[in-house]
Amino acid sequence: MTTKDKPVALIIGAGDHLGSAIARRFAKEGFHLVVTRRRGDLDLLSSEIQALGSSATAIHSDARDEDQVIELVERVESEHGPIRVAVFNVGGNVRFDICETSTRVYRKVWEMCALAGFLVGREVAKKMLQRNEGTLLFTGASASLRGGRGFAAFAGGKHALRALAQSMARELGPQGIHVAHVVVDGLIRNEATAEFLPDLYASKGEDGIIEPDELAEIYWQLHNQPRSAWTFELDARPFSENW
Amino acid sequence: MTTKDKPVALIIGAGDHLGSAIARRFAKEGFHLVVTRRRGDLDLLSSEIQALGSSATAIHSDARDEDQVIELVERVESEHGPIRVAVFNVGGNVRFDICETSTRVYRKVWEMCALAGFLVGREVAKKMLQRNEGTLLFTGASASLRGGRGFAAFAGGKHALRALAQSMARELGPQGIHVAHVVVDGLIRNEATAEFLPDLYASKGEDGIIEPDELAEIYWQLHNQPRSAWTFELDARPFSENW
Amino acid sequence: MTTKDKPVALIIGAGDHLGSAIARRFAKEGFHLVVTRRRGDLDLLSSEIQALGSSATAIHSDARDEDQVIELVERVESEHGPIRVAVFNVGGNVRFDICETSTRVYRKVWEMCALAGFLVGREVAKKMLQRNEGTLLFTGASASLRGGRGFAAFAGGKHALRALAQSMARELGPQGIHVAHVVVDGLIRNEATAEFLPDLYASKGEDGIIEPDELAEIYWQLHNQPRSAWTFELDARPFSENW
Amino acid sequence: MTTKDKPVALIIGAGDHLGSAIARRFAKEGFHLVVTRRRGDLDLLSSEIQALGSSATAIHSDARDEDQVIELVERVESEHGPIRVAVFNVGGNVRFDICETSTRVYRKVWEMCALAGFLVGREVAKKMLQRNEGTLLFTGASASLRGGRGFAAFAGGKHALRALAQSMARELGPQGIHVAHVVVDGLIRNEATAEFLPDLYASKGEDGIIEPDELAEIYWQLHNQPRSAWTFELDARPFSENW
Repeated sequence: MTTKDKPVALIIGAGDHLGSAIARRFAKEGFHLVVTRRRGDLDLLSSEIQALGSSATAIHSDARDEDQVIELVERVESEHGPIRVAVFNVGGNVRFDICETSTRVYRKVWEMCALAGFLVGREVAKKMLQRNEGTLLFTGASASLRGGRGFAAFAGGKHALRALAQSMARELGPQGIHVAHVVVDGLIRNEATAEFLPDLYASKGEDGIIEPDELAEIYWQLHNQPRSAWTFELDARPFSENW
Repeated sequence: MTTKDKPVALIIGAGDHLGSAIARRFAKEGFHLVVTRRRGDLDLLSSEIQALGSSATAIHSDARDEDQVIELVERVESEHGPIRVAVFNVGGNVRFDICETSTRVYRKVWEMCALAGFLVGREVAKKMLQRNEGTLLFTGASASLRGGRGFAAFAGGKHALRALAQSMARELGPQGIHVAHVVVDGLIRNEATAEFLPDLYASKGEDGIIEPDELAEIYWQLHNQPRSAWTFELDARPFSENW
Repeated sequence: MTTKDKPVALIIGAGDHLGSAIARRFAKEGFHLVVTRRRGDLDLLSSEIQALGSSATAIHSDARDEDQVIELVERVESEHGPIRVAVFNVGGNVRFDICETSTRVYRKVWEMCALAGFLVGREVAKKMLQRNEGTLLFTGASASLRGGRGFAAFAGGKHALRALAQSMARELGPQGIHVAHVVVDGLIRNEATAEFLPDLYASKGEDGIIEPDELAEIYWQLHNQPRSAWTFELDARPFSENW
Repeated sequence: MTTKDKPVALIIGAGDHLGSAIARRFAKEGFHLVVTRRRGDLDLLSSEIQALGSSATAIHSDARDEDQVIELVERVESEHGPIRVAVFNVGGNVRFDICETSTRVYRKVWEMCALAGFLVGREVAKKMLQRNEGTLLFTGASASLRGGRGFAAFAGGKHALRALAQSMARELGPQGIHVAHVVVDGLIRNEATAEFLPDLYASKGEDGIIEPDELAEIYWQLHNQPRSAWTFELDARPFSENW
């Protein structure tokens, strides 16, 4: 069976633990996975996907770059077939007081959170609209709904991404494309986080960390919702979270 | 196998199409169903549940009456075993301009939407807290989030129910009880609605009606979420809905 | 000058410091004040109003009782003239974990926050609609927007009041009646609070307490908004509040 | 009296009718006005301000350009004195379906709505933090709270601006700086709008247009709120608006 015989899932931002978990979840269901990140390893994830009996194409691509996104989407559709589901999972969580927020950081965080989401969303939508079918999933955060001290840049980017997702859902839903937004309200298990934010990590305790595989299940369920009952937005947090 | 060997699901407000669909969904998974409504037929639903290979106890009980709710929950727990999941699905959608809203209607809608939800939530929580386990699901509506002309009573009741669910989720989550709120933003297929609101029904078209069985899937998924990634709230609407 | 020559302001719930301050604010502008509370002293407030050069009618009336509200509004309109502005300022802040919330408390808090607001709003609206003119102001709280542990009853009542205010604003605005909702997010200076909640009070510090007279200014400004730019909702909190 | 003797108000985006009206409102109170826009006439506004007995400095400056914003704020503070109030009133309302939204438009709208707001907010905050005093007002829109078909770019920019304002308010409030966000939910009277959108304009009718001078009053009131009762957010719309 060539990859063309499988449904295609495109995961933008497959470099973190959530992105990898979502990729594996769709791999288990027989999807061909196209997994991207800007740079860094994708071999481990590709091996995991193959070990699950599916296939993967790993691509380094910068989701903030219009040309690269256009080329990526064209390539996936021509080489692997119609994108059934696309997940935008690029983040950029930083925390600076307002006067310590550089213009470079403010712009970069918006480019990662919102501009990249716009480029991916728009290019994938163009393809899906030809078929009036497909699922577009965006990863949000607590900062998608609420600003706070230190969050001018990150909340700005995430608010803009939510506005994008909501605008796309309202426009594209009646055309058969399911757009949804997952508000992740908690820390996802991740060795990098544990290493760089040991205090925050420790303060959460074992019960306070989101397991990526369990969060990934939500993405799978959203993709499978029949169109008479589509969800636009849901939140997810560890049971012990104080929210 | 007696009913005591099966996990128990309690559906309060099983008289409408959503309540019935949720009951059938849990029945398929081997739950014993306790289905209640204030009055009216429950035999058809009981037969459907048995036809699915499971068992049902049908009880007429008024969820607005403290004594009846206490007695109901006691009886379910002693006769059928620990309640694993309880669904509060009582509604009361009315529409009157403010000066045409009688005090009787205003009070009654609140009793159906909020007081009944409080009584069921509290009594079930008392039992679940003994085991630090269980799922409590509340059915909301568009009016849970937004008032509007004609909605003083219904939006009032639904807003209060959402405040209850959110308060319970924040208190009980860390104690192992999953509380969630489903915002149903659309018309659910229902012969009664089709008959009494033919114009509204027709205006939605076939694509604009929520299939109860498809909405019920969401309740099943919420119950099955592992505790590292619990959802408190999600919305659901037909793909063609103009929201 | 008889009271009939002055514009009339009706303050429901004039027993607390905010209610008194709002009454004094309108008194300064030459309004005749009708101030009500269920029971307790209103003489001090009446004297304060007279000392400001205006006049007051103090009435003990239970805003949760339909007959009393109807009679009150009739009496004010026939004895003192058309109600230009009505302020609903009845509260009922309690805090109990869900299993410790009695049905009596849950119902009573809703009656104070929401049912009373509905009765006052509806009866005053009937009069104002005859003139297509008037202002209806409702006092909200942080719990109007957010539930939390211990807040099932209070957040329920306040959410329902907000739904009422929003529904009325959307219906009555185009008919010339300005409905607004003030979200008070903080502790209002009040000897009773200081006495009964000394720890909370002390924790806020001098900078963390809302001055009633300063909050009352907002009610005055809302009443004076020209109809091309009406506010439905605003929040208010001390500058030092951590929100 | 030199300009140094007057309190200073800085209006960024004084080219539209709201910006002009806010400038005139503060001029009436004896403020020296520094009014900016990227290009286009500012002479008429300067004359109006002088006719009100106050003084104005008109500057062409691009609020999206970091260097220009830094220079502007430095110049205002050194030549005219401490900025007491700064109003960020730059907009960029466009409407395109998602697939018709060019990357250039998406980026430009964000730069106008959010990046410019960030630059102005940060630079002004640096000065105000030296004095623990000052007011920062941001102009929002319906799209600040809600996305919709055609609004991916504009709602994205306005959501990001709101996240900025909220983050700044939570950080800077306790340091004595009042940050507020005005949600303008309606069409502001404006010959340009009437000319370019005649159908929309006509559909609103005389009663459905916001008078800039009446909206400007809200900015003046926000600036004057004593710090025990600060508003972060309020909405404003014509009484006849169907919202």
